[in-house]
Parts: sequence; C-alpha cells; structure tokens
Amino acid sequence: MRILGIDPGTGICGFGVIEDATALDYGVISTPPHTPLPDRLLDIYTSLHEIIDADQPDVMAIEKLFFKQNITTGISVAEARGVCLLVAKQYNLPIFEYSPNQIKNAICGYGMAHKPQVQEMVRVHLKLETVPKPDDAADALAVAIVHSFVDKNH
Amino acid sequence: MRILGIDPGTGICGFGVIEDATALDYGVISTPPHTPLPDRLLDIYTSLHEIIDADQPDVMAIEKLFFKQNITTGISVAEARGVCLLVAKQYNLPIFEYSPNQIKNAICGYGMAHKPQVQEMVRVHLKLETVPKPDDAADALAVAIVHSFVDKNH
Repeated sequence: MRILGIDPGTGICGFGVIEDATALDYGVISTPPHTPLPDRLLDIYTSLHEIIDADQPDVMAIEKLFFKQNITTGISVAEARGVCLLVAKQYNLPIFEYSPNQIKNAICGYGMAHKPQVQEMVRVHLKLETVPKPDDAADALAVAIVHSFVDKNH
Repeated sequence: MRILGIDPGTGICGFGVIEDATALDYGVISTPPHTPLPDRLLDIYTSLHEIIDADQPDVMAIEKLFFKQNITTGISVAEARGVCLLVAKQYNLPIFEYSPNQIKNAICGYGMAHKPQVQEMVRVHLKLETVPKPDDAADALAVAIVHSFVDKNH
C-alpha cells in the first residue's frame, strides 16, 4: 500500500509518499510570497499531478481542517485542500482524512503532543537520519504514517 | 465584456453569464445530498470547464467568503471556491472578487439589503420577466452585474 500524505496549504503544501514504513518521496509545493491565490492553486494542481504520475500512490491521506486560530488563513488552506481533493478524485484515489488530534494521538500516543515530538517520531518510524524538512513535508509524512497504522489494523 | 459570475458552494454552485446587461446563460452545478465532497469538487471542475467552453466569458467575478454563521459550511464553500479559482486560472480569466456587502451595496444601494431585494434588482437590471431561479443562480448573476458596474466606471 503506497500512501500519499498531504499537509494542505496555499503558500506551502507538504507532501510525502511512504510504503512499508519507508519514505519514497517527500517535499513541498511552494510559491513565492505575494503570489496571487489562483496562481498558487494552479501550481498545486499541476505539481500534484506530477507527483502522483511519478510516485503512483494507491491512496491519499490528508489533514482535516480545524479552525483554532486564524480564519483568514483557514479559508485559503481550505481552497488549497479543495484542489488536492479534486486531484485525488481525478486519479480515483481513495481519500482518508485525519484531524490534527488524531495524527498526534496515533504518532505520539497523545493528542497534545508538540510539533517537534511528532516530527521526531516521523524520523524514527521511517528510519531517517534526520527529521524531514521543511516542517510541512514532515507533517505530510505524519498523516501518511497515520493512515498506514489504520490500514494495518483493518 | 462577457462576465461569468460565480456563487461558490459544494452542494449547489451558482453561475451566470452576462454581457451588456443581458443574461446569456445561468443555472447551478448541483449534486445530490450526501454526495462525497471530492465527487462534488470534480463535478464543479468538469461543469465549469463546459460552461466556460460554451459561453466564452472574458472574466470571472466571484463572491468573497465571509464567515458569519457556520464555519463547517464555510470550509466546504472555500474548497469549492478553490476549484473555481483554479479553473479560471486554467483559462487565464482575470478574477474579480466581491464581498456579500459590496454586492448588496452595488445592486441595492445599501449593504443590509435582503436576498429578495437583491434578486428583484437582478431581474430588473437584466430585464427578465421573473426572478432567476434557483437563488444561487440569481446570486451568481448579481456578482456578475456588480463587476459590470465596476468595469464601466474605470
């Protein structure tokens, strides 16, 4: 089972592809500051097509949105997320969504875990020498790992 | 100047195409209740391509999101909106965004106007015999009309 994890965002959208607890590919789709939103969405659309064509994942796992802090940021994240879901559907990839709490719980054992703890567990789980960078790529790998746990248990 | 107006939404997405105060086309992209979100987004993507291919608009005018009531609904509207912006960008259509208040102000003369007042003014402006239905199509025509006002003044 090859899993594409996505940490959606407009400025930076993280992705990570894993299979059997191995990272096959990870990184970010990023656009320069002040790039207009529609250009960013088109970049995410095009790049995600290239990633799926290259990495051939079987499913997409993506972070569920959760508005705690900034609603304006949240709107643009949702706009990016819509494009990611669209692309998954274009490839007929089954889509699985996990909330930030579910991800922390599954990776670290408790929902209040801090980002560096999640990232260190991602490193350990994937047997990497260093924590994957940037953060958004590590977060995308985290949601892919969570789905690999869930998938294994069923 | 042929303007495609969009009232974004996942269950129902309104569209309306106007030129010289005439409605050329309007309607909604709608999916049955409980259709999974990614299927809805793909339907919006495909239908919007068909509408633009058929109607050949010069620009897109789209409602800006405004969270007053329901944040969960707001997230899915933003996801649909992201797909609409993506499609506009794929056709290199210039995109203009108007808030609900700007639309009410421009159409009715004051920002607190109620929906039926906006819809009646849309009917009058486009010289239609009856108010365009459903509501989402009328709202999409409204945002297109607003852009025609703005465009005329510059």
